[in-house]
Amino acid sequence: MEDPILFTPGPVELPYEVLVQMAKPMISHRSIEFRRLLKNSIEYLKKLFGTENQIFILTASGTGAVETALVNLVDKDMKILVPVYGEFSRRFKEAAMLLGAKTIGFVKDFPVLEDFIELIEEHEDAEMLLLVYNDTCPGLTLKWLPEIVKKAKSQGLITIVDAISILGGDVLYTDKWGVDVVIGASQKCLMSPPGLSFISISDEAWSRIEQGSVKSYYLDLRKYRKFMERPETPFTPAVSVLFALNKALEIIIDDIGLDSWIEMHKERASAMYSGLEYMGFKRVVPQDLQSNTVISIYPPEGITPEGIIEGLRNKFRIFVSGGMGKWKSRIIRIGNMGYIKPANLVALILGICSLVIREGREVDIKSVLESVVRGVEFCL
Amino acid sequence: MEDPILFTPGPVELPYEVLVQMAKPMISHRSIEFRRLLKNSIEYLKKLFGTENQIFILTASGTGAVETALVNLVDKDMKILVPVYGEFSRRFKEAAMLLGAKTIGFVKDFPVLEDFIELIEEHEDAEMLLLVYNDTCPGLTLKWLPEIVKKAKSQGLITIVDAISILGGDVLYTDKWGVDVVIGASQKCLMSPPGLSFISISDEAWSRIEQGSVKSYYLDLRKYRKFMERPETPFTPAVSVLFALNKALEIIIDDIGLDSWIEMHKERASAMYSGLEYMGFKRVVPQDLQSNTVISIYPPEGITPEGIIEGLRNKFRIFVSGGMGKWKSRIIRIGNMGYIKPANLVALILGICSLVIREGREVDIKSVLESVVRGVEFCL
Repeated sequence: MEDPILFTPGPVELPYEVLVQMAKPMISHRSIEFRRLLKNSIEYLKKLFGTENQIFILTASGTGAVETALVNLVDKDMKILVPVYGEFSRRFKEAAMLLGAKTIGFVKDFPVLEDFIELIEEHEDAEMLLLVYNDTCPGLTLKWLPEIVKKAKSQGLITIVDAISILGGDVLYTDKWGVDVVIGASQKCLMSPPGLSFISISDEAWSRIEQGSVKSYYLDLRKYRKFMERPETPFTPAVSVLFALNKALEIIIDDIGLDSWIEMHKERASAMYSGLEYMGFKRVVPQDLQSNTVISIYPPEGITPEGIIEGLRNKFRIFVSGGMGKWKSRIIRIGNMGYIKPANLVALILGICSLVIREGREVDIKSVLESVVRGVEFCL
Repeated sequence: MEDPILFTPGPVELPYEVLVQMAKPMISHRSIEFRRLLKNSIEYLKKLFGTENQIFILTASGTGAVETALVNLVDKDMKILVPVYGEFSRRFKEAAMLLGAKTIGFVKDFPVLEDFIELIEEHEDAEMLLLVYNDTCPGLTLKWLPEIVKKAKSQGLITIVDAISILGGDVLYTDKWGVDVVIGASQKCLMSPPGLSFISISDEAWSRIEQGSVKSYYLDLRKYRKFMERPETPFTPAVSVLFALNKALEIIIDDIGLDSWIEMHKERASAMYSGLEYMGFKRVVPQDLQSNTVISIYPPEGITPEGIIEGLRNKFRIFVSGGMGKWKSRIIRIGNMGYIKPANLVALILGICSLVIREGREVDIKSVLESVVRGVEFCL
């Protein structure tokens, strides 16, 4: 039984058209066919990232791309700002510390813009700022990213943004906002399989990389840049995953349109939140930080997150996630990423509804249904 | 046109049964289905590696697994023996040096066993020995691996062996030979797609890892070991590639049998070499170092490697490789890895034959044909 309905925050379900790409015959990664494939994918990714900067595709999980950014840019004893507001920003900090950086930053569940501005102002001697655009746990989008990056750049900081769990699911204007390094991955909002991750590098970041020394053979971006002249990758890439990614990007960018794709995520998120609220669920994250790609909720009083998560899995083969770190066993997280079939959205919301009713709760069914109907308008 | 015939030393052609695995619906990497998949694959890999040691599957190219071994085991200023006898052993040395190790070792095209024994004896204070079991350029298998490792272990060295391009294509007895760390990858002799790599760790290597400090978040094997208790991977793996790998390993281990699989590589190599010799090609590597998985040859006098490589690609859509580093433009390298269709072997050998005849050379066609007939006996 391997046909689950995935509402986890990645990996996500893949449409048939994308899946079958992986059944294509293998090609050499030193052939003209591969070069064309890589070039096409990079062009699509530039549109997704909103950048003219160079983008590299790595055979690694998203965390591998985060590490690549750090290994190439962070030197020992470098003073780096890393505000922590979730499990993934905490990991970002940990990864930087392992490389010997001096990390400075607040730890807050739900920071406000002023927290970031103050942090930057208080540390004029810092060299870098690391931000997670969308922290999947608890499910928080840093909506003030443009303002924060602007402030950071005005003080000469290099900015590295982990956009893994939001890329394609919300707006991203790397060049307009002036972000130096942006990190993404294949398995979130791009209806693509896991295995590849991406990194974009600004000219300013490049000049830093050239000044420093990269203590890694596999993650050395200068090698990737050299091979992009062909364009190829320095090491054997996950070719089949790239076949799938390229097709998914073609559908998103050429057929659906990036703006519509992002709009779908936003509208679905709104419908899912309101449907859940009509059943007595409560939003975890304040409105101005709420993510479109990870719906995070507290269950109604007296119902455990595990009850809902296991009920959905056992009755409907629907997979959603719980919390991580300090949020463990406290919240439910539902991925609203990429390709969602109308039938699956209906099954998710009404599945949860049935579990809540089974627990003896009153539910405003008519309003729940209205939310579902609104949500399916924005499914594929 | 993406249906090439691949005789490159990886990636390799995949049988339909393996390819279609990647078109299976995505599953969560935190589900029971994934755990079963991972567990099965690890069990198969243990047979391939000939080990009871723990094996980890990484989402990275083979070079990423090499880096993982080094990041976890090498400390700054550590004295390490790295003999260089090809492009990949040269890279192994470079990767270790980037981590601050003091690398010591000879540089020879075709070393003899005594070179290794002397190196080990002369450096009693070294802590580690890095060996490439099969260096794909020039196409050389270190047949004395058991003897060298035995000597190294008798002096208390930790041994790390890169077996990427030979795993499944020749004998490997990790435990019997006493190798501490063995590295492999999916896209060589296992008729699997690229994207995953493997690493096995002995108890002795583990105790070293525990004494040291791992300066990487993504490549920290202690995280991988912790997650293997479930068993899961710490970061999102290339699930689709694992579907394919697992099926390929099932066919190799359960249906064909590992001994027969290795025998196929050996017999095909022998047939390919002799067929080529009847056309006037010369072996590059001395007999006692010749690889079964990479056939490396000099073209007949007056014919360039490029002439053969381009002729095969343009006339037959067959991909073979040239040399790298010092072997560039001097040799031809033909991958003899994994799944080869009889028709493709015939097309390769007779394709080369036609190119040689076109250059006005006399060829002993009858003997070439006999070699081809012998080779196809060991195709799938």
